Order: sequence, then structure tokens, then C-alpha cells
Amino acid sequence: MEPKIQEMINAVNENPFGKMLNIELTELNTGESSVEITVLPHHLNPHGTLHGGVMATMADIAMGVAVRTLGKVGMTINLNTNFIATALLGERVIARGKVVHDGNSIASVECTVSRGEDILARSTGVWYLLKNK
Amino acid sequence: MEPKIQEMINAVNENPFGKMLNIELTELNTGESSVEITVLPHHLNPHGTLHGGVMATMADIAMGVAVRTLGKVGMTINLNTNFIATALLGERVIARGKVVHDGNSIASVECTVSRGEDILARSTGVWYLLKNK
Amino acid sequence: MEPKIQEMINAVNENPFGKMLNIELTELNTGESSVEITVLPHHLNPHGTLHGGVMATMADIAMGVAVRTLGKVGMTINLNTNFIATALLGERVIARGKVVHDGNSIASVECTVSRGEDILARSTGVWYLLKNK
Amino acid sequence: MEPKIQEMINAVNENPFGKMLNIELTELNTGESSVEITVLPHHLNPHGTLHGGVMATMADIAMGVAVRTLGKVGMTINLNTNFIATALLGERVIARGKVVHDGNSIASVECTVSRGEDILARSTGVWYLLKNK
Repeated sequence: MEPKIQEMINAVNENPFGKMLNIELTELNTGESSVEITVLPHHLNPHGTLHGGVMATMADIAMGVAVRTLGKVGMTINLNTNFIATALLGERVIARGKVVHDGNSIASVECTVSRGEDILARSTGVWYLLKNK
Repeated sequence: MEPKIQEMINAVNENPFGKMLNIELTELNTGESSVEITVLPHHLNPHGTLHGGVMATMADIAMGVAVRTLGKVGMTINLNTNFIATALLGERVIARGKVVHDGNSIASVECTVSRGEDILARSTGVWYLLKNK
Repeated sequence: MEPKIQEMINAVNENPFGKMLNIELTELNTGESSVEITVLPHHLNPHGTLHGGVMATMADIAMGVAVRTLGKVGMTINLNTNFIATALLGERVIARGKVVHDGNSIASVECTVSRGEDILARSTGVWYLLKNK
Repeated sequence: MEPKIQEMINAVNENPFGKMLNIELTELNTGESSVEITVLPHHLNPHGTLHGGVMATMADIAMGVAVRTLGKVGMTINLNTNFIATALLGERVIARGKVVHDGNSIASVECTVSRGEDILARSTGVWYLLKNK
């Protein structure tokens, strides 16, 4: 099934939490999606670097949209993130989600969060697929 | 070492991302911390329920503050969350973090996110301890 | 539904991999199960301590049996383990699994691996429930 | 630093738990390693399929050897596995570990467990690096 591009873009734009975080959908293919931010003051932790919760949220959104490109709606049941490096104010950060396995009830999805060539975090997610859509 | 209560509370209040999410520190003991939110419109996902990224962020903050009550500063290197249920607009959600093991370089921390008696999510985290403070 | 004790004990005894590892089922309650080993030479890693794979396997079995006490059969879809300490030859190690949430399709389960009072590892697992039994 | 091939192969062969599981080291490059099994009766779970604990152990060994090819010795502090499919008696299963990030104190490592073209499981691991060697 072909991804319904506009529906996906709307879904991300309709996501209130994603909007508050200024997360933009920038790429969409079958089983894949990328979202990006420019690091703003409200994305920072007390150390003055990008908060891990922002990276986890970007990964969750990129992976959820990747699942939706397959014509499926699901919900995250497990989200695991390894944090490797961080980013600073004004830097551009991208989260690329990709479906690894698309089963009947369960999808396995992964995401790389990076800044240029540097990997900042790697996430894996398990989605429970509610229904075909 | 006794927790320096006021320093902890300031650390959470100085957390720009936590502030944007209206996360409040509500409890603090040695090796333990609780943070809370009332679910607001900007916390929601496209399904109209509490975004998993908010729960993951609350868990990250509650666990990070729990580590700081031990007089240590660290950074999250792994954050794993199992999502069990969600919450609706206006509901009160609490994340209780607790240090399970406090080693020389690594701390193992856990968190329960709940709404009243209902568990919404369970997180585990690994912290790399930068230095004593 | 009451756990069928003998069926559970048989299931563990019929588990070829568990048998090879000398894993014994030692406790069984609704939603809970404990399995134990005495650390034998074939459980060791090259450092001469208990192999992490043994602890992960004990956790997987203890959690899977805990799910079965609820009258359900499932399969592990996510297994996450934080390793805190290890054990030596001849020591007694116990893994206690406990169902945290028992949903229609998904169960969330946790496990503590310990030696006496010392926690060696903490695992969380997600089970996909195949059918009632 | 170049990997000391023979030392690595010995490390795997000296691994008592790996030996009991008939795990063979079959490939070794800088930051990468592959281990394989042919599924034997003692690798099975009560459903008659490859036990998840075997896959988790293969991943742990493949990732640990991948870390050692960098001239470092470490220990697993987090091991996360998503199980996607399983294997049957007599099938050949390979686990390919790869270091994603090699830091001063922490390495982030990943592993794909597969049977031919089919992915059976994906693991991520965090290693605490004890010392250079």
C-alpha cells in the first residue's frame, strides 16, 4: 500500500506535543520517516544541552509515522533508547525511523537520532498494531 | 550524604524542557523523587491521549533527580519504557523514580508512571555518574 | 483462573534449554514465579563469573512462567536487562518474575535476579498473549 | 589498534557458557563479530522452537567480542532484545554484532540475529569499558 503522504504530514502536524516541540516531518517513504528540530532554548536540560526526553520523543514520532506509512495505526508498547552524545543550542538534529519488521499484530521499528554525521542516540520500538486503516 | 533539597528543586525548576512540560517536583527522599503533571492540551498525541514522549520525559527527570539526591551528577545512557495505559486531559499523572543500585560509575534506576492506582508505564534507566558533587 | 501448578512445573521441566542450564522452578503464585540455579562451571563467562546470558535466560523463564500462571500462553517480544553485579561458582542465584500488567493481548512483566540480598540484574519483558488456555 | 584475531577466537572458545551452547565464532573485523549455531535439541523452548535465551546469549557474545576487537575489555550493563521470529531444529542461525559508538567509558553496540535473509531478533547493548588492554 502506498503511503498517503498528506495524511501522514497532517498527523504529525496535528500532534500537539510534537508541535510544542517544533518537530517537523521532513522525509517520508514506505516504512521510513524523518523528523527534525533546530535545538531551541526550551529543548535544553539543566546542563544546557539537548534534553534526552526530546530525543526520545523525536524517535517515538519518527517511528510511529514510519508505521503509519504502512497503512497501519498502532501504539508504542516499548521504547528503548541508548544515548551516545548530545547537541547544543542552534544545532540541527534529525531522527530517522525505519520499520524493521511488520507483523500482523506487532511491528519492530528502529531510529537513529543524529547531528550531521554524529549519532546522538539509537532507539528501538515495539508497536502494537490496532487495525489496518 | 543528605540530599540538598533546595538544590534539587532548583535543578528541576531550571530544567527548560521540564518547565515547558509543566513538570513539578513533588517529593524528594534519598534515592527517590516524584514529579507530576496535570495533563494539558499540549501533552496530547494525535489520538487525544497523553503522549508517550511526555511519560518518558517525566521518567527521565524523576530518575535523574533521584540520582542527584545521592549527591551525584550523571547522564542517562539507557532509558527503556514499557507503556501500559494512557491518561486523558485534566488527569493527574505522577512519575516516581527510585535508585535500585548506586555503583561507582553506573547507577541503575527505575520509575513507575501512574494515575491514581493505575500504572501507565514502567521505565528503567542506566546513569553514567560523572563525578561526586 | 487458578494456576495449574503441576502443568507449570512440567512446562519448566520440559524446557530443554532450561534443563541444560539446570534451572529449577522453586516458587509459583498467581502472576509470580521463581527459578533458581547453583552456579556451575558451564554457567561461567571467560572472566570466571556468571554469564549474563544465563541471567537473561533465567529472567525470561521466570517471567514466562509467571504469565502462564494466569492461564495464558504468550511469547516474549521484548526482553530488557540491566546488569548490576555478578555471581561466582557455587553461589545460589534466584530470578523472581512478576506480572505487572495483564492486558488482552500484551502482558508487562518484570524480574529481579538476586543472590541473597544482593540484586544482580533487573529485567523487564513484554509478552504477546497468543490465546487463553 | 588491530584486532588480535587469535586472542578473540580463544576468548570465545574459553567461554564455558558459549561452549555449552555450541556457539562458534565465524567472523571477525574491527568493531564487528559474528557467531553462529545450528539449532540443536538443547536450544529449544517448550514450544519446540529456538529459545529466546539462546538468541539473547548469542547477541551478548557477538557484541562483547565486537567490543574486544577494539582492544577493550568491558562488561554488559544493558542488553535489550526485540524478538521477531524464531528458528527450528537444524536451522543455521547467525548473530552479527557491531560497535555503533566507542567512547571512553561506554560503548554502544548492536546485533542482528538472523536465519538466512530473515531477521529473528534485534539487540542493542551498552558496555562499560573496564580498561584498555
